[in-house]
Amino acid sequence: MTATAVRTEVYAQVQHFYAHQMQALDGGRFADYAATFTEDGTFQHSPGVQPAVGRAGIVAELVEFHKRFEGDPVQRRHWFNHIALEPQADGSLRSTVYALVVTVRPGGKPEIAPSCVVHDVLLVTDEGVRTRSRMITHDQLV
Amino acid sequence: MTATAVRTEVYAQVQHFYAHQMQALDGGRFADYAATFTEDGTFQHSPGVQPAVGRAGIVAELVEFHKRFEGDPVQRRHWFNHIALEPQADGSLRSTVYALVVTVRPGGKPEIAPSCVVHDVLLVTDEGVRTRSRMITHDQLV
Amino acid sequence: MTATAVRTEVYAQVQHFYAHQMQALDGGRFADYAATFTEDGTFQHSPGVQPAVGRAGIVAELVEFHKRFEGDPVQRRHWFNHIALEPQADGSLRSTVYALVVTVRPGGKPEIAPSCVVHDVLLVTDEGVRTRSRMITHDQLV
Repeated sequence: MTATAVRTEVYAQVQHFYAHQMQALDGGRFADYAATFTEDGTFQHSPGVQPAVGRAGIVAELVEFHKRFEGDPVQRRHWFNHIALEPQADGSLRSTVYALVVTVRPGGKPEIAPSCVVHDVLLVTDEGVRTRSRMITHDQLV
Repeated sequence: MTATAVRTEVYAQVQHFYAHQMQALDGGRFADYAATFTEDGTFQHSPGVQPAVGRAGIVAELVEFHKRFEGDPVQRRHWFNHIALEPQADGSLRSTVYALVVTVRPGGKPEIAPSCVVHDVLLVTDEGVRTRSRMITHDQLV
Repeated sequence: MTATAVRTEVYAQVQHFYAHQMQALDGGRFADYAATFTEDGTFQHSPGVQPAVGRAGIVAELVEFHKRFEGDPVQRRHWFNHIALEPQADGSLRSTVYALVVTVRPGGKPEIAPSCVVHDVLLVTDEGVRTRSRMITHDQLV
């Protein structure tokens, strides 16, 4: 693997893709978030849970997960850093990214936890980047 | 909105623009910071305050704002994440960016607050990127 | 200094370089980290210490430094932000980057400290980007 094996345009495209994808998630636009996955995309947001499969499955999982925040005026923001891409033999990109979750409540200070690593497989299609699979590991669970 | 509607060169250019812009602000180089705005640029650093207008106005606002730190050897650093660009009909770019303010004092640990969102309108000119307007929202004030 | 003086491809290449470089460091792959420096590269990870010189010297310094974490199941992650590049007359790039160190222990919450600034000189070679020198300053030590 070398950092130069990925074309510059693709690197910036992936960065921009993540910006829109995660602002959709943090904005509660779950259908928009799910649409950033491939039709058969999988999303495992926490270790040990079954991955959600497909866009409808991803939306359902997010709705379920966010029930814990019902009536709680929380704003969560997922920060990403150090997007490392590795081209795979099948044309996909393995993407390994640091993540921190910022949580803020009215009048409060941001809590910054947990520290995670995002393990994605990405496809670059004519319609843009899509996530084929996403699996999150948590540093405090290792 | 699609992430691909913005050319790759422009995306990297905006990222680099923000790096220099915010290092100027955090370095106390207010004239350099103001010069990253258009001549008639507006800057509203906190909700509910009147925006500063024009480069001289922006410098004056920053001088005024920083009086609260006089004699306080504080180092502030504005971190940005997830720069999401959306081209506008008039050729400008709407830019929505996560921000965290890192504050450090001698011998101390960084305080990381508040969590904000930067709402910019950017112009890409022959001389580089310029901010036409900037408005900041704070997550804890929503 | 202008942000546009650095070509777009180079900016994205440097970002990607840092992603791989710092994931190597945080993954404990010290030889991989050292290989991101030029043969005669220098690395001063803290103010006031002698810089390590050359790849073997950098590996030795990292092994020595990490002895303090022996038996401590700590995960450290170095976050970067606002990579500001300035081309130098000799063809190298001066790179000034914000950094935060995220430290996590099993079952714990991330500690985010210290806040640093990375002062690099980078070379763009046929084999990719290489760090010729790295010096770190700490905000709380100013």
